[in-house]
Amino acid sequence: MSKRIAGPEIERLIQLLAKVPGLGPRSARRAALHLIKKKEQLLVPLAASMNDAVDKVRVCSTCGNVDTSDPCTICTDPRRDGATLIVVEDVADLWALERASAMNVRYHVLGGTLSPLDGVRPEDLNIRSLIARIAEGGVSEVILAVNATVEGQTTAHYITDQLSGMDVKVTRLAHGVPVGGELDYLDEGTLAAALKSRTAF
Amino acid sequence: MSKRIAGPEIERLIQLLAKVPGLGPRSARRAALHLIKKKEQLLVPLAASMNDAVDKVRVCSTCGNVDTSDPCTICTDPRRDGATLIVVEDVADLWALERASAMNVRYHVLGGTLSPLDGVRPEDLNIRSLIARIAEGGVSEVILAVNATVEGQTTAHYITDQLSGMDVKVTRLAHGVPVGGELDYLDEGTLAAALKSRTAF
Ligand SMILES: [Zn+2]
Ligand SMILES: [Zn+2]
Repeated sequence: MSKRIAGPEIERLIQLLAKVPGLGPRSARRAALHLIKKKEQLLVPLAASMNDAVDKVRVCSTCGNVDTSDPCTICTDPRRDGATLIVVEDVADLWALERASAMNVRYHVLGGTLSPLDGVRPEDLNIRSLIARIAEGGVSEVILAVNATVEGQTTAHYITDQLSGMDVKVTRLAHGVPVGGELDYLDEGTLAAALKSRTAF
Repeated sequence: MSKRIAGPEIERLIQLLAKVPGLGPRSARRAALHLIKKKEQLLVPLAASMNDAVDKVRVCSTCGNVDTSDPCTICTDPRRDGATLIVVEDVADLWALERASAMNVRYHVLGGTLSPLDGVRPEDLNIRSLIARIAEGGVSEVILAVNATVEGQTTAHYITDQLSGMDVKVTRLAHGVPVGGELDYLDEGTLAAALKSRTAF
């Protein structure tokens, strides 16, 4: 707001809400006003829920997922098949695959992709922990569900090389993922189909 | 999420974020993940800001605006002209007018519109406090900036009647073609009003 029309606390709330993905400056004002009006029904519980998240959310030391327990809900779920491991770049991709797929598998979150230009080297990603997980045994297939970008494919090749001596099948998502597309923005049907038609890497 | 993939605290955060205007269920997941990743930069300050709002935001007892002080920033601003009072239905309208206008005026928030069907009577709106403010003196013009709906116009007529014995000019917003609006897409009522109120070119 150009003119000062409310106390600094409300302007700060609007500024912070504007940084939330999906909300711009205009939506942030509307959201702030809605939250203030629905104080007991929405603002109070949302603030409490955020404080809860601040206190309790951590990164899973096994797979790199975020959750309120470590190991995470997925890593400790006894109904999931530990023999299949889906490798993703980001937690958002893990969540997208979970929504799309009926596969009860486990995951490994790399935390990014190799990028010599941006100075992202293998040791900057969760690759060593992936190798260690597979070396422990029990994993028969690794599905490389990385983005269909240059960096994603470079990362997939690097991991495939690292796993070449190990007794594990390496597959990747079927083409059907648009070239240059990011998993998190894909519709669930395409994701499910791509997962089903995965091919040997 | 259909499957349980994260602890209840994260699922609750997603559910609450989905109730914020501008965010749907899908955006809420993305927003939650972004907040968790940007914990120190965004989640912690946003939670603190919301707690601050819960503690400090109140309704201005003079005009009905929401702010962290009572009377509000606008009511206590000495540079504003107390002789002109803009009457609005909602705080959102006050904020919109502040963004749109360079007029340094004061406001009065009705908190809704008269609606016999929904059981909203004059005593349910901040009309008595409006009359009292004007009776105190110092207000020479009241601009009725209510929505151009049946309820808005009914409310405007009622307020005009109530103010008829008082020494104050009552005006309303001009009807017309929205800036950038295309004639072809405008309703006939707006077009007829714009034609009637035509100005010299
Ligand atoms: Zn995990
Ligand atoms: Zn006020």
